[in-house]
Amino acid sequence: MTRTQVGIIGAGPAGLLLSYLLHAEGVDAVVLETRSRAYVEKRVRAGVCEHPTVELLREIGVGARLDAQGLPHHGFSLRFDGQDHRIALTELTGKSITVYGQQEIVKDLIAAHEAKGYPIHFEVTDVELHDVDTENPRVTYRDADGEARTLECDVIAGCDGFHGVSRPTIPADRIKTFDREYPFAWLGVLAQTPPSHEELIYTHHERGFALHSMRSPEITRLYLQVPSDEKIENWSDDRIWSELDVRLTTNAHDFVLREGPILDKGITPMRSFVTEPMQYGRLFLAGDAAHIVPPTGAKGMNLAVADVRVLSRALVELLQHKRSELAESYSDTCLRRVWRAEHFSWYMTSMLHVDPAADDFTRRLQLSQLRYTATSRAAATSIAENYVGLPFA
Amino acid sequence: MTRTQVGIIGAGPAGLLLSYLLHAEGVDAVVLETRSRAYVEKRVRAGVCEHPTVELLREIGVGARLDAQGLPHHGFSLRFDGQDHRIALTELTGKSITVYGQQEIVKDLIAAHEAKGYPIHFEVTDVELHDVDTENPRVTYRDADGEARTLECDVIAGCDGFHGVSRPTIPADRIKTFDREYPFAWLGVLAQTPPSHEELIYTHHERGFALHSMRSPEITRLYLQVPSDEKIENWSDDRIWSELDVRLTTNAHDFVLREGPILDKGITPMRSFVTEPMQYGRLFLAGDAAHIVPPTGAKGMNLAVADVRVLSRALVELLQHKRSELAESYSDTCLRRVWRAEHFSWYMTSMLHVDPAADDFTRRLQLSQLRYTATSRAAATSIAENYVGLPFA
Repeated sequence: MTRTQVGIIGAGPAGLLLSYLLHAEGVDAVVLETRSRAYVEKRVRAGVCEHPTVELLREIGVGARLDAQGLPHHGFSLRFDGQDHRIALTELTGKSITVYGQQEIVKDLIAAHEAKGYPIHFEVTDVELHDVDTENPRVTYRDADGEARTLECDVIAGCDGFHGVSRPTIPADRIKTFDREYPFAWLGVLAQTPPSHEELIYTHHERGFALHSMRSPEITRLYLQVPSDEKIENWSDDRIWSELDVRLTTNAHDFVLREGPILDKGITPMRSFVTEPMQYGRLFLAGDAAHIVPPTGAKGMNLAVADVRVLSRALVELLQHKRSELAESYSDTCLRRVWRAEHFSWYMTSMLHVDPAADDFTRRLQLSQLRYTATSRAAATSIAENYVGLPFA
Repeated sequence: MTRTQVGIIGAGPAGLLLSYLLHAEGVDAVVLETRSRAYVEKRVRAGVCEHPTVELLREIGVGARLDAQGLPHHGFSLRFDGQDHRIALTELTGKSITVYGQQEIVKDLIAAHEAKGYPIHFEVTDVELHDVDTENPRVTYRDADGEARTLECDVIAGCDGFHGVSRPTIPADRIKTFDREYPFAWLGVLAQTPPSHEELIYTHHERGFALHSMRSPEITRLYLQVPSDEKIENWSDDRIWSELDVRLTTNAHDFVLREGPILDKGITPMRSFVTEPMQYGRLFLAGDAAHIVPPTGAKGMNLAVADVRVLSRALVELLQHKRSELAESYSDTCLRRVWRAEHFSWYMTSMLHVDPAADDFTRRLQLSQLRYTATSRAAATSIAENYVGLPFA
């Protein structure tokens, strides 16, 4: 039996960042993770860091590698009607985004924990949360050696993602969930080839959405809209390149798609999901455990960071100063920003994808919206300020 | 048998303005209208003139009464979450709108025709269009005395609204239509009472949309969202005032709804509709004959004015200078602005109404969009620039 102030379930960006922020303020925390360190350090997920995310990572001293290796971007393109329409992020908002993989942030945070001796337990199993509606919640689990353990806490933070154990611990009649499934998915490809363009290109094509992105000067990340029930087996490397070429190249005159060996490919479903509230007793949910966005707005990891920024302050107040106001308002505070991101992600998704069930009227509206966005400074600024990230609460 | 260069079907704002613009450039035109002059001069429809509409009416010398009696507005309110959020039109765009009834513009244009002796034939019947795919189209009709007449033309302009004869003249396989019906309607009220607030108030309430508007310092115009199959018989004056009070007053602290005798009430369906192209041979459609918007964005009459501005130039080029480029591009030129207005009208409608079929996720998105619009200068500017009117093509 061990004791800590905050038991953190999950060593993704949310859990690790929360742990680091709490320790920095003198609050004791323990992170439990079912996967291995090697696994979480290689898990390819988000790649776009908002301006407030980058600022926070720098501020707490884990931004050195991000600054050295991250790719600052000052704009991206909307490609449709045969040409590119640039959303000039920095010109419109004074801010930029940084392309830096989520797994790199995870590596940096794990290294920072290691340097300071903050505990992370990997490869735990049988994680269960108990008494979360009391002031003495507990986590039981087996450690990497199979030993049964109990972690007594003041608070538990559920940072274990959409499929984690934390959210289902809450009685169903105490939370309300909001859900939207989209009739399409993303086929994502990691290719060993320099990006074909220095910025991201969000493409609307009659055959479907495509995204040109990158992870480094040598690694390109590309996505194709596919049906939601599509099987990866149906997509040979040749077919992937050919479809990318149709959607990206025929849509712009001076674009040449650089091909290369495909290192990884997979299909990701598109879904919107929100839990209200994000708290039950002494259990606080953060990141994907509480909400999911479709990836089009690049908001998923950034929302997790925003949650954790609010949660860390609330828990410091609660545990160091015995003031519960911030903890009580945690869910409301986060949900306003969460719903903003849900709306933006839905908006970008709707504007750029081809909905197979859409009627002709909706398709024309979609084109009109794209054209307006490409010609109105106000509309472009609205997209830009959401994309670079609205201020943390 | 008489001859004119342009036969204009319909003496609404589109037909009358087109006639006036053509005559001013030396092109001969005749307007045919099935209703009486008294009827069209009293028909209560739109009441918000965009900035470009006002400028055009002034420029051609029919803006004197509009300038004297119209009410310039520099902003409007979005009312939700218990407070008002002002969209500062003039501060955000440098432009304003003018509240001035459509029937007043019709009166001004008829008076201007009378003064110059430009022909308008009211109370015609049995209007039929012939040979519109040739260079010698004809209109047959009976005049107010029942006499059979033929009007030979170079061009026919169909300005006879959604239910007019012009659009159905076009073979069904030569046009494509786009349609959206909304699951709600507007119950509109004209009341003899000064407006309760000096500006328009677009209200989102859980019981449905409501709009506070006005026609003059003595006449208030109010609207309530009702089901699309609602019967006006179900709405006594008392019930109307009581429901307006619930939606408008409980939503804002310092608002008092001024009641008064109801002069007129009626239910208007909400629909979006577009015809592509807006031309067939020598028949050109303009205004509601070609497209319908739900009234939420106040775009219907303004779109008609924009069409006619493009069409008058195209017809002067075609008939005076034998150059057909503008006539050939008429439809494409108009449709870009039409679809912008269709999107804006759909957007305002979706943001403000309660869709009885919407799931909880959609309702939360709607609230998030309203809150964002009320707090982001970029989002407010985007609404404002559409509302005051994007430049004519």
